[in-house]
Amino acid sequence: MNTAAATSTAELTLHPIGHVIASDESQTYLVVIDEPYRAALRGLDQFSHVTIVWWATECDTPEARNHLVTDLPYAPGVEVGVFACRSEYRPNPIAFTTMPVFEVDVDAGTVVLPWIDAFDGTPVLDLKPYIPVADRIRDVSMPEWLSDWPLWMEDAGAYFAEHSTDFGD
Amino acid sequence: MNTAAATSTAELTLHPIGHVIASDESQTYLVVIDEPYRAALRGLDQFSHVTIVWWATECDTPEARNHLVTDLPYAPGVEVGVFACRSEYRPNPIAFTTMPVFEVDVDAGTVVLPWIDAFDGTPVLDLKPYIPVADRIRDVSMPEWLSDWPLWMEDAGAYFAEHSTDFGD
Repeated sequence: MNTAAATSTAELTLHPIGHVIASDESQTYLVVIDEPYRAALRGLDQFSHVTIVWWATECDTPEARNHLVTDLPYAPGVEVGVFACRSEYRPNPIAFTTMPVFEVDVDAGTVVLPWIDAFDGTPVLDLKPYIPVADRIRDVSMPEWLSDWPLWMEDAGAYFAEHSTDFGD
Repeated sequence: MNTAAATSTAELTLHPIGHVIASDESQTYLVVIDEPYRAALRGLDQFSHVTIVWWATECDTPEARNHLVTDLPYAPGVEVGVFACRSEYRPNPIAFTTMPVFEVDVDAGTVVLPWIDAFDGTPVLDLKPYIPVADRIRDVSMPEWLSDWPLWMEDAGAYFAEHSTDFGD
């Protein structure tokens, strides 16, 4: 087991494969995959949920990438590392969002979603189907500062609507 | 909503933040975070599970990145797009693995895991805590070709041990 050899500072290169369309005005939320990659969508419509892997462009600055410890807007006084929260400030500003798949059109390259927490125009890097055996944890625990949060994504909307004032919105 | 402006071919740059240590011989599986990023681990020990975002180095070739449709070793005769499976062949070879967090040592930069499906030395890009409200889906459905798979990650080991011969292992 050679641990030293693996430490690398080499840069890796990503190519956006599409982008997010997010319009609160028209309540339209989708991913559009660029033409060369559309064949990769085949079969995604058979899954109930997809994880969209996207690039937090606004956090792709040296300052944001070095912002390693952060305050939590939902937990006053708690400061944690960015690997212990889902902040978009991180050394590599990769974000992901799991959402229901409403509709997939392979030819048009579109994946229609109910919503997405990414800005209009956000670069998309990958799509992965939600597969319970890999992604769905039965016995889960969370820190004290998240202990009131719901245990299912389906309950997120109602919870955050009820508690929106707690988070300074 | 300006959809055209967002289509981008710009390259984005990742920096590995650490690497995987995976030794079947010694049954040792961990992530080692490079020194400059270790502060970001603060608080991760409060979560039961973490998602390790890693780079499938062996699939970082033009050929592998253009391999958009693939056979499924576990579903003979089914050919799907790489956005409908978790193959490491994908336009951006970003992979992720969700695992229990056994131990976090912020100073040493280590996150000990029970196992990981990545090779020794694999570059690590990010760590994200598993947060049920974002990641845990109550009502999920899968394609027919996965319909026998367990609905919980905790049942993966027993299932794949029992069915290993089905997958040509």
